[in-house]
Amino acid sequence: MYRPEIRVFDCTIRDGGLMNNHLFDHSFVRDVYKGLSEAGVDYIELGYKNSKELFSPSEYGAWKFCEDEEIRKVTEGIKSSAKISVMVDIGRVNMADIKPASESPVHMVRVASYVKDIDKGIAMANEFHDKGYETTINIMAISKDRGPDLQDALRQIEKESMADVVYIVDSFGYFYQEDIEYLTKLYKGILKTREIGFHGHNNQQLAFGNTIEAIIHGANFLDATIYGIGRAAGNCPMELLLGFLKNPKFDIRPVLDLISRDFVPLREKIEWGYVIPYAIAGMLNEHPRSALALRKTEKKENYRDFYESLTNTGLD
Amino acid sequence: MYRPEIRVFDCTIRDGGLMNNHLFDHSFVRDVYKGLSEAGVDYIELGYKNSKELFSPSEYGAWKFCEDEEIRKVTEGIKSSAKISVMVDIGRVNMADIKPASESPVHMVRVASYVKDIDKGIAMANEFHDKGYETTINIMAISKDRGPDLQDALRQIEKESMADVVYIVDSFGYFYQEDIEYLTKLYKGILKTREIGFHGHNNQQLAFGNTIEAIIHGANFLDATIYGIGRAAGNCPMELLLGFLKNPKFDIRPVLDLISRDFVPLREKIEWGYVIPYAIAGMLNEHPRSALALRKTEKKENYRDFYESLTNTGLD
Repeated sequence: MYRPEIRVFDCTIRDGGLMNNHLFDHSFVRDVYKGLSEAGVDYIELGYKNSKELFSPSEYGAWKFCEDEEIRKVTEGIKSSAKISVMVDIGRVNMADIKPASESPVHMVRVASYVKDIDKGIAMANEFHDKGYETTINIMAISKDRGPDLQDALRQIEKESMADVVYIVDSFGYFYQEDIEYLTKLYKGILKTREIGFHGHNNQQLAFGNTIEAIIHGANFLDATIYGIGRAAGNCPMELLLGFLKNPKFDIRPVLDLISRDFVPLREKIEWGYVIPYAIAGMLNEHPRSALALRKTEKKENYRDFYESLTNTGLD
Repeated sequence: MYRPEIRVFDCTIRDGGLMNNHLFDHSFVRDVYKGLSEAGVDYIELGYKNSKELFSPSEYGAWKFCEDEEIRKVTEGIKSSAKISVMVDIGRVNMADIKPASESPVHMVRVASYVKDIDKGIAMANEFHDKGYETTINIMAISKDRGPDLQDALRQIEKESMADVVYIVDSFGYFYQEDIEYLTKLYKGILKTREIGFHGHNNQQLAFGNTIEAIIHGANFLDATIYGIGRAAGNCPMELLLGFLKNPKFDIRPVLDLISRDFVPLREKIEWGYVIPYAIAGMLNEHPRSALALRKTEKKENYRDFYESLTNTGLD
């Protein structure tokens, strides 16, 4: 697939950090930034922009806060044409801390919002836009909310927001490719002046296939992570996405190096990927939190009980 | 997806056995057969039917040969509505050993054939048909051979063979869903009197997504294996396929039990699944043999060198 409008968006540190409280050390993040820059990805998301009044820096790593000076430490001196992104959650940012884009190493701010919070999401994205950032609105958990409310939210975004990109987010790893076709067409039909993005989760090994499906139907912003790292089942693997995209500006080899050196050993310490309780949560359209909790108990491999607890089938 | 014509075809022991010379002991195979029968799958493939003159029983397990008496040992006394299948390769069967279907526990014989060998494949499938077996022709490695020769082979099968089912086989785990759409339509257009099957390999985490794609376009015979076990990257995971199919005759829970008890521990001893050299081989449309060989060396995690060796990009 060669389409010049396509943007490859890495969220290795941001989504991967959900599995270790963003406690990646600076040399690791610097290596990741350098490798991804060599690979030619378009955006690199380094974490969340959270207020330190809400989360303790003694518990969470630097990438939970993404202060400008920390970002500079891992990027300065590295040749890169990638833009830097951070993600924000509604109600967790102190806007007084946010400098204008012209004074920050950050290029893009992505606002994560549920359908029900879309008013706040639009307002927040517009604030960042006014400060000079590229912005996106990432509508989360829409597998629970695909009806008229989603369509209203999309119309409101088109009318009221300045966001450059609006994302389809398969938070629970539930969607099959027919769903992605439907949603991409729905988004494109309403959001006539915006780019469409796709962020998959890999519970059912469909994150890559669904990303291809989104591309086919016109999504141009594609999220992926190195070796698929991310919360629970993780995300679309960057190495597969780069293998699919035929644009010669991408080079898979620096990503292969990072996997060999850093991510195969890291997978021994942090669990992400195809793990049956995550697959079960995905196929049942459930948040992975119960599966994540299960994996910390002695019953971690007791899949039948977990399935029955989510479906109430244990008594039949 | 609910379509009564759909048949779920398990090939756990047959394709998984390619990773351990089919050295599964009888109690393991019996457990698998019992669990799959409880899950309601339609066919269970227990291995290959090979001549003992070609492969040594001291080197290979019983499921390399699938003698009727061995099959009876693992199936007798177990309530099951599943049919039993074996696979055959051209030139590796002594037809004099083959009893009529009425005297055998085997219901179906699947003939694996390359496009170039299709004359022999048709003749062999017809011989098994004449002995009373259901038959399929599984056309292998068609990602290397999608041109007029494939279409000629399909026309010849439709005209000359008695095979009930003809399979699309993604031997190298190369195909994206557009390819599956194209091939399923091609097969259906030519093979008007046959069912279409799909057998994926999971090199690029697309075996399940491609199986869904094949279903959408009309394939009714769907191969899968427990926990995705199979050669190299393995196959479409049975648990995901059962989660997708909404037919109430299937029950995912016995498969979850088998994974908990047998397949998670087995994965510690035999490597299959998402391993980067298998992914690289898949995206480059290469047989996995070089990746399988690499995994037995000290360079097993040296992905860049492997990629460069397959693409000759090391010198640029």
